Amino acid sequence: MTELWSDMARRTKPYKAGEQINTIDTIKLNTNENPYPPSPRVVEALQKALTADLRKYPESDPEKLRNALGEYHKVSAAEVFVGNGSDEVLALSFMAFFTPGKSILFPSVTYSFYPTYAALFDIQYDEVPMGKDFTMNEEAFYQSAGGVIFPNPNAPTGIALPLQSVERIIQENPGRPVIIDEAYIDFGGETAISLLSRYDNVLITRTMSKSRSLAGLRIGYAIGSELMIEALTRVKNSFNSYTIDRLALTAAEASIEDELYFTETIQRIIDTRERFKKVFESIGFTVLPSSANFLFVHHPKVPAVQLYELLKEHHILVRHFSQPETERWLRVTIGTDAEMEQLAQQLFKTVDAWTDKNTAY
Amino acid sequence: MTELWSDMARRTKPYKAGEQINTIDTIKLNTNENPYPPSPRVVEALQKALTADLRKYPESDPEKLRNALGEYHKVSAAEVFVGNGSDEVLALSFMAFFTPGKSILFPSVTYSFYPTYAALFDIQYDEVPMGKDFTMNEEAFYQSAGGVIFPNPNAPTGIALPLQSVERIIQENPGRPVIIDEAYIDFGGETAISLLSRYDNVLITRTMSKSRSLAGLRIGYAIGSELMIEALTRVKNSFNSYTIDRLALTAAEASIEDELYFTETIQRIIDTRERFKKVFESIGFTVLPSSANFLFVHHPKVPAVQLYELLKEHHILVRHFSQPETERWLRVTIGTDAEMEQLAQQLFKTVDAWTDKNTAY
Repeated sequence: MTELWSDMARRTKPYKAGEQINTIDTIKLNTNENPYPPSPRVVEALQKALTADLRKYPESDPEKLRNALGEYHKVSAAEVFVGNGSDEVLALSFMAFFTPGKSILFPSVTYSFYPTYAALFDIQYDEVPMGKDFTMNEEAFYQSAGGVIFPNPNAPTGIALPLQSVERIIQENPGRPVIIDEAYIDFGGETAISLLSRYDNVLITRTMSKSRSLAGLRIGYAIGSELMIEALTRVKNSFNSYTIDRLALTAAEASIEDELYFTETIQRIIDTRERFKKVFESIGFTVLPSSANFLFVHHPKVPAVQLYELLKEHHILVRHFSQPETERWLRVTIGTDAEMEQLAQQLFKTVDAWTDKNTAY
Repeated sequence: MTELWSDMARRTKPYKAGEQINTIDTIKLNTNENPYPPSPRVVEALQKALTADLRKYPESDPEKLRNALGEYHKVSAAEVFVGNGSDEVLALSFMAFFTPGKSILFPSVTYSFYPTYAALFDIQYDEVPMGKDFTMNEEAFYQSAGGVIFPNPNAPTGIALPLQSVERIIQENPGRPVIIDEAYIDFGGETAISLLSRYDNVLITRTMSKSRSLAGLRIGYAIGSELMIEALTRVKNSFNSYTIDRLALTAAEASIEDELYFTETIQRIIDTRERFKKVFESIGFTVLPSSANFLFVHHPKVPAVQLYELLKEHHILVRHFSQPETERWLRVTIGTDAEMEQLAQQLFKTVDAWTDKNTAY
C-alpha cells in the first residue's frame, strides 16, 4: 500500500473468482459454466456482425436488447437494464441503492462478491445466519435499515426460497431496496418477476452466463420498477457510457430468439443434476436440494479440501470455499453426463481409498 | 428522485455522449470514431473465435493481451491494465487514486466525463482555467492536494502539451497521482511512456476505440508503475472479475499484431486533418492546432449552435458543447476524404447563405 492509493483502494478486499485452468484434459466443474455451447443462432448472428461497423460505438442504452428482454419477460423496456455481466449490474446496484451509514442485510452463506462490493463502497452490512440445512431465515430479513440482497436460488447452496417468502421480505422492507439475484433461476425456483407490478422497491438481476452459455460474452441484466431502473441508468451513465460491445449485444439478442434451444439445454442440465444427486448420495455424500446448475455436497468421512486436492490431481476442478460455515462442503457444477460420470468414478475411488487409509475423521 | 435511491444516485450528473444516429445517409463526425474499418486481421481472428468456448468465462486479468501491450510499449505486463473501454479505466482510476476531501485538478476545458466521475465518487475538484488560445496553464497544475488528470492531446481542443511540461507537472506533484489520458496520442503529440521508468506516480490511459477502429468492441488500457497498476487491479477485482469478453480480447490481440495497417490508417487521418484544416480556414474558420483525429473550429460570423443545426438538417453530424467557454466552437471528427469534402461544400454554402442574411453577428 502507498500514499498514491485512494482510501477505497486501501480498504477493498478483492473478490477471488474460481480458477480458470483451461487445459484440454481438465474437467472444469468449478465456475458454473454451462457444459453446452451457445445456440447455433448466436454463432450465425455473430458471423454476420463481423463488419466494418465494429469501428463505431455500440448503443449506449441498448434499446433493441431491452425491448427483446422486456417482451420475453412481459415487462416494458423501461423496466429493463443491461450490463457487462451480472457482476457489473450488481456493482452498479450497490452504487445506486445502498448508502454508507445505512446497514444492509444478506445471508451469511451467499455469493461472496457481496461483502466485497460492500467494502468497496463503504456499505455496512449484517450477515444473517442461515437456518438449519442452509435455509434462509426469512424473518431475519424484515425491517432492514438500508436494504436487502440475496440470491434466489442461493449460492453456493442451490437452495431456492419460496415466492411467498420473497414477497414477505419485500413487504417488510417498505421504502428499502430489495435486490433478488436470480443468476440461477432458470434451473429452478420461482422468479419474483410477477411481484414487480405490485412493489416498486424490487430489483431482480439475471445473467446470460449460465443458462444461456454466454459467460465468454459478459451479459447481465436487471428487471425492476422504472424508478429502480432509472437509478441504475444514472449511475451507469456516470461510470461508462458504453458497457456492452456490439458483438455481445448481437449474441444476447440472438440467444433470446432461440427459446427451444434454451429450454432443451436447461432440461438436460436439470436431468443430469437430479441423476447425479442420487449417484453422489450413493457414494455417501450429503447433497443439498439444488435448484441451480450445481450441487453443494459434503462427505462425512473425507475432508472437503482433501477431496478438492485429490480431484485436482486427476484433472477435475470443483470449487472449495474456505469460510468456516462452508469449508466442509464442495460446490460441483453440473457438466455433461460424460463429465459427471468421470467425476463420479473418481469420487468413488477417492472416497474408498481415503476411508481405507483413515479410519476416523 | 426517491428514498429508494442511494446518495450516490441522487448526487450524480450523468455524462451525455454524442448522438448515435446511425442512418445510412448520415455523415457522422460527432463521436471521434475512425472512418476506416478495423484491420482485416481483426475480423479473421474473430471468425476463428466463434466457437463453443464462448460458453466459458474469459481471462479475468488478461495475460495474453497484457503481454502483447507490454511488448508493444516496451514495458512489463505488470505495468499494464486493461479495461472495458478507456471510460471504464478512467472510472476505476478515479476510484483507485482519488479520495474524498483531497481536491484534484483538471483543465476547465477538457473531457466532460471528469466532472461526472468526480460527482459520482464525491471527489472535490478545481477546474484550472485555460491559457490564451485554449492552451494548458502548466504551472497551475503544480502541488495539487489529491492529484491531477488531463488529456494529452486535450479534448475537445486537440492541443497537445509538450513532454517537458508533462514531466514538470509530474515532478511538481510528488506522492500525488498524475493521470494522463492519451486517448488521442496516436494522432500526434508525445507520449509520456518514456517517463514511467523515472516516476511511480504516473498512470497513462489509452483506448483502442479511435486509432484502432475498435469503438464497437470496448477496449481501453492503462500503463503505469506496478504500484499504480496494482491499485487499479484491486479495485477492478472488487467491481467485476471479467470486464472484457472473449471476442474483445481476441480483437485487441489481433489489432496489436498489425502495425502496418495501424500506421497507414493513422497517416491517412493525419493527412486528411491537415488538408481540411486549410480548407476550413479558407471558409473563414479559426481552427486550433490539432494533434488528434478531430478539429475544433470557430466561425466569426455564424453562431456554432446554428451551424450545428444547419449541418444536421443536411445529415451531417458534428459535436456542439453548450458550456460557456466552448459554446462558440464545434468539434469535427476527421472522416474519410469524401465525407470531409461533403462537409466542406456544405459549410461553404451554409456560411455564405448565413452571412448574406445576417449582416451583423
